[in-house]
Amino acid sequence: MTWSLAFDLLGVFCFAISGSLLAVTRGYDLVGSVVLGSLTGLGGGVLRDLVLRITPTAFDRPAYMVPPLVAAALVFFMAPEVQRFPRTLLVFDAAGLGLFCTAGAVKALQFGMNPVAATLLGFTTAIGGGLLRDVCANRNPKLFDPRDIYALPALFGAGAMTALWHWGGGIGAQFLVALAVFAIRVLSLHFHWRIPLAAGERAQPRAS
Amino acid sequence: MTWSLAFDLLGVFCFAISGSLLAVTRGYDLVGSVVLGSLTGLGGGVLRDLVLRITPTAFDRPAYMVPPLVAAALVFFMAPEVQRFPRTLLVFDAAGLGLFCTAGAVKALQFGMNPVAATLLGFTTAIGGGLLRDVCANRNPKLFDPRDIYALPALFGAGAMTALWHWGGGIGAQFLVALAVFAIRVLSLHFHWRIPLAAGERAQPRAS
Amino acid sequence: MTWSLAFDLLGVFCFAISGSLLAVTRGYDLVGSVVLGSLTGLGGGVLRDLVLRITPTAFDRPAYMVPPLVAAALVFFMAPEVQRFPRTLLVFDAAGLGLFCTAGAVKALQFGMNPVAATLLGFTTAIGGGLLRDVCANRNPKLFDPRDIYALPALFGAGAMTALWHWGGGIGAQFLVALAVFAIRVLSLHFHWRIPLAAGERAQPRAS
Repeated sequence: MTWSLAFDLLGVFCFAISGSLLAVTRGYDLVGSVVLGSLTGLGGGVLRDLVLRITPTAFDRPAYMVPPLVAAALVFFMAPEVQRFPRTLLVFDAAGLGLFCTAGAVKALQFGMNPVAATLLGFTTAIGGGLLRDVCANRNPKLFDPRDIYALPALFGAGAMTALWHWGGGIGAQFLVALAVFAIRVLSLHFHWRIPLAAGERAQPRAS
Repeated sequence: MTWSLAFDLLGVFCFAISGSLLAVTRGYDLVGSVVLGSLTGLGGGVLRDLVLRITPTAFDRPAYMVPPLVAAALVFFMAPEVQRFPRTLLVFDAAGLGLFCTAGAVKALQFGMNPVAATLLGFTTAIGGGLLRDVCANRNPKLFDPRDIYALPALFGAGAMTALWHWGGGIGAQFLVALAVFAIRVLSLHFHWRIPLAAGERAQPRAS
Repeated sequence: MTWSLAFDLLGVFCFAISGSLLAVTRGYDLVGSVVLGSLTGLGGGVLRDLVLRITPTAFDRPAYMVPPLVAAALVFFMAPEVQRFPRTLLVFDAAGLGLFCTAGAVKALQFGMNPVAATLLGFTTAIGGGLLRDVCANRNPKLFDPRDIYALPALFGAGAMTALWHWGGGIGAQFLVALAVFAIRVLSLHFHWRIPLAAGERAQPRAS
């Protein structure tokens, strides 16, 4: 197994944990937990592969079903312990974000996409699974939560990885960028880093 | 018209009826009923064909628009009668589930996918349309309802069809497996068959 | 820059404005506004290109990211002014609808799709971005709102453009059809044009 595949499967596992944990808080059953975990872990990569016009890895390689199954089993047996730490979902989601924004950018570059496209596709890979998770569970996407920053670290990670790849960076660069994205995301959760609202500081959001 | 095409169009019709019935309970107009019925009836197959990298049949063959139009017209004129039986939506959804998990698996196998991929793709075909229906109508997906079993019969059907196809099974096998999936789903609705929750029996779901 | 590209980028801009304005009413931050605007502006075209099995233009050509960025910046600085006119979101959405149903149909025809498929694909291009916007913002899709007509003008526009294209119509025809779709949609908002409900006049919607 290459490092690249290991990172990818780890990313699937992290997002799958976040999906299975959401399934617990929603009161889903064990199969729903596997399905929501799989959607979360594999959705971003499927989107990326469809845009790249290759057979989605999640369907092509049976190994990609292992992380969601392990994740759902872990959550099933460990949920009471895990629930004492309500931010667990977000921490695993942050790890998946770092791993996927870099892996998605690298894969896009390997298939000949231009740097802007590779950055966008790394970003899409990273946010796709979590967006699908929240939309399918019928809740407001974490992606749009203004109380901390989510999209920005993923965009930064995809862009940084694209630049480093052009300068010859490989799996070591990916590890460092993924770690940086994870750290930024977790710190933003802890310190409530925020960016300006969509309406500028003068406007007040109004009920839709 | 081959049996295989007939089964596929019947599956589109069943899911389209479920979509158009949901449009009624949501107070949509007639065009919304056609659109939600089409999304439900054609969405799963479009997803499958995108993964298989072929032009989605729903767009390629005009015949696929006929079932959603007929379904919306039927629901338009029969809604008062149908509403006396509140489970009609679920029964049509169950028939679509059986027809699509088998048809999706067979199509994937015909395009050379491995058995695991064919099972996953049959499952995706079967649950895709209903998930799209519920997400677009902004309600909690039936797929994740823990009060009965939904995903499991579809997964079983896709897996059984994949096995039977490798042993030479054809349209007869598809009919029997689809019937079994339909029966399991309807019985699970009637007897409230459940499977363990995502959190194991010790944990309590908590509000998200 | 060709007229065809200019129309396409204008369509992206109009839908992106609608997405960024929704981000304001939802209280998202500036990055969320760019992301929701991009999803709205680019989502329909990505769907269309995936069905046509070509690399989605939104990923392939960096120019397509400019309209969502400009739209989010405009909304950021102008939101207080714009909010005095609550229907702004709907007017921009209507302009995008007209531009995209025609552009989508023309692109499908250029790639050799049959007339029914081109009409469906023009319709999908037009409604896809707005549907994605509403689903991701976790609200009832405007597409299904029975208080005015939304899907019908888009379907009419895609069909009319397909017919005119076969009769030799080009960019002038596209401009006129797009204008007609915009006018129908805006008039339907103003005069509350409605079509029959999904259930026929005898039935009452019931709570789901």
